[in-house]
Amino acid sequence: MNLHDLTRELQRKNESKIVMLVADGLGGLPQQPGGLTELESAKTPNLDALAKKGTLGLSTPVLPGVTPGSGPGHLGLFGYDPLVYNIGRGVLEALGIDFELGPKDVAIRGNYCSLDENGNISDRRAGRIGSDVGARLCEKLDKIEIPGVEVFVRHVKEYRLVIVFRGEGLGGDVADTDPQRTGVAPLEPTAKAAGSEKTVEIAKEFLKQAREVLKDDFPANFLTLRGIAKKPDIPTYEEVYGTRSAAIAVYPMYRGLARLVGMDVLDAGQTLDDQCNRLEAAWNDYDFFFMHFKYTDSTGEDGNFAKKVERIEELDAAVPRITALNPDVLIVTGDHSTPSMMKSHSWHPVPTMISAETCRYDACDTFGESSCLKGGLGQFEAKYLMSLALAHAGRLEKYGA
Amino acid sequence: MNLHDLTRELQRKNESKIVMLVADGLGGLPQQPGGLTELESAKTPNLDALAKKGTLGLSTPVLPGVTPGSGPGHLGLFGYDPLVYNIGRGVLEALGIDFELGPKDVAIRGNYCSLDENGNISDRRAGRIGSDVGARLCEKLDKIEIPGVEVFVRHVKEYRLVIVFRGEGLGGDVADTDPQRTGVAPLEPTAKAAGSEKTVEIAKEFLKQAREVLKDDFPANFLTLRGIAKKPDIPTYEEVYGTRSAAIAVYPMYRGLARLVGMDVLDAGQTLDDQCNRLEAAWNDYDFFFMHFKYTDSTGEDGNFAKKVERIEELDAAVPRITALNPDVLIVTGDHSTPSMMKSHSWHPVPTMISAETCRYDACDTFGESSCLKGGLGQFEAKYLMSLALAHAGRLEKYGA
Repeated sequence: MNLHDLTRELQRKNESKIVMLVADGLGGLPQQPGGLTELESAKTPNLDALAKKGTLGLSTPVLPGVTPGSGPGHLGLFGYDPLVYNIGRGVLEALGIDFELGPKDVAIRGNYCSLDENGNISDRRAGRIGSDVGARLCEKLDKIEIPGVEVFVRHVKEYRLVIVFRGEGLGGDVADTDPQRTGVAPLEPTAKAAGSEKTVEIAKEFLKQAREVLKDDFPANFLTLRGIAKKPDIPTYEEVYGTRSAAIAVYPMYRGLARLVGMDVLDAGQTLDDQCNRLEAAWNDYDFFFMHFKYTDSTGEDGNFAKKVERIEELDAAVPRITALNPDVLIVTGDHSTPSMMKSHSWHPVPTMISAETCRYDACDTFGESSCLKGGLGQFEAKYLMSLALAHAGRLEKYGA
Repeated sequence: MNLHDLTRELQRKNESKIVMLVADGLGGLPQQPGGLTELESAKTPNLDALAKKGTLGLSTPVLPGVTPGSGPGHLGLFGYDPLVYNIGRGVLEALGIDFELGPKDVAIRGNYCSLDENGNISDRRAGRIGSDVGARLCEKLDKIEIPGVEVFVRHVKEYRLVIVFRGEGLGGDVADTDPQRTGVAPLEPTAKAAGSEKTVEIAKEFLKQAREVLKDDFPANFLTLRGIAKKPDIPTYEEVYGTRSAAIAVYPMYRGLARLVGMDVLDAGQTLDDQCNRLEAAWNDYDFFFMHFKYTDSTGEDGNFAKKVERIEELDAAVPRITALNPDVLIVTGDHSTPSMMKSHSWHPVPTMISAETCRYDACDTFGESSCLKGGLGQFEAKYLMSLALAHAGRLEKYGA
């Protein structure tokens, strides 16, 4: 019996509200041994007030030492074992732009790139072209026709796009064509497993036509294909937890992840303020709200300690608007750590807090890595956060007599 | 997808160096409630300096309450689930004397013993005969011939030897013949599972001939058979982690364990100083070094608290020679606890420290059990130490998009 078998059997409906506030890449590192992390450096009176009453801990997104991408990081927070459910990047991107993927679809994340006169990649992001250019080129590529399949090309943002092939017998096990460096030619599509040969042929034909279509569009005179994948079978929040659930996320990928587990994706606007407005407006319509804040991750990726501190303070300032709604359970966590020192996602455990009436006091009075290390949740696998949330919300019956 | 599937998929090569310093049986107990353990009593300025910058924790070798032998203890440290990979003692001993085991081999650890005139065991270790005597007797036993199989008898040290039967259809599931006490006769070999009947017959014939061969060699006038086993299928370090790996261990069994997971076994000499010389000499040839220090275990087994403290201080004094090489990741741990109070291995969690640039500060400034209890690694399964080591060494890619 696994965790979802349990929550399926034990779920109970009530009037409670759960908010999961995810600060992407929240966890960090100090700038020198003995120093404070980004979160510890930030002035966070509102989060600290929650910490005083709540229970803190450190969550391991996947396994010790394993650095998650955004997909596994969020699946863990949503209570789906990220080693069981493996979501391709193409699928995430497609879901994030509201593209409804069906069972016959293979989804691909595309990146416009620049080719030099020798056909080698000179810029893997096509000089970071603007969204207006990217969108126009996607319209051209969307006209590509390949016998036997439907081809969809949709713009995401700047140099990023999604390609979907729809047809019979298309496997999703095809290697990326991005060589991950410049000065070399893009790779040819190749199958990583039997059953994907047709997809390889379609991808080759698509790239051949795309090179012709884009030939005069330098710096975006070609594209690479990444994260080629089909949508996995994944049970919904409604089924495993019995909650009516909504996502309020500005960035496409996080909306895509939420949609994958069956959450309604609400219009989140562009700012935290917009997100809080949406939360208030939708408060009566849902039981569970996933709110996503991107900038703690992007500032970490930029290696900007001070900016990450600022973004954490910005998040803190939004907390009173959430607590004013009196959620029964408020979770604050991250999908992984992004220490600005490392300029990348990392494996370090993530500061996590549950605030609810039923929290056991753990003497933590600030929200930070050191404080969380002493917290009542201890160190735990992120996939257990949802069962804890449901428990604190009174939404899980007793197991066994 | 298990841990090794992950490390296989995510492994990345770079120039980093990892040292895992294993102080056998490191963990201990205080002499009275509230007192200090052996490690806490020892003056360890060098380990404490590492602790200030590193991350500490307590590792559970197998499962809570389960006391490991050296085999499971080390397999855990090497990242191999000790409940999945079960290594017989005979196999370890054979590997430790450079005996190349093949798929048709059954390996057995032998102990010379003394039989009295009634055929009962009067000394389970044959009066701890010297290695010269043991070696001479092994040469005699090696001449034993049994139709249908090859028989190899090799001396290990003092009263200890290895016997290998090589042939078709030999199972490895045969019970020990050592009754674990004196005043009784050795046990007859018996099969613990179907498929090992032939091995039982061969073992009986071998013991019959051995009794004749040794009849005039009191106190070593017979032998018992233990840890009868075949070599398991186990993936190599190179395959699962992508590291060029070396073992620097004085005692055969630990060399054997390292060889089993595909490490190169280097000449370690006899002392810690010899081992450090070897580490320096081999520094450029490997990515991962396993250094083993036996005497924290043997002094614990002897019940000698003060001597264990001394041995820990001896280990501490060697630390600067290791840190002078600037390893990217230095791990200090044990394969299990051996509290001198208990004179045996125990299940108590093992003090563990990771020192690396990417450690999150955890406010621990000494290396000891109480300090480790507050450390940033928390309490964790030893099998995750290798993924943590690889992560800190920058040798693991991100999992998922």
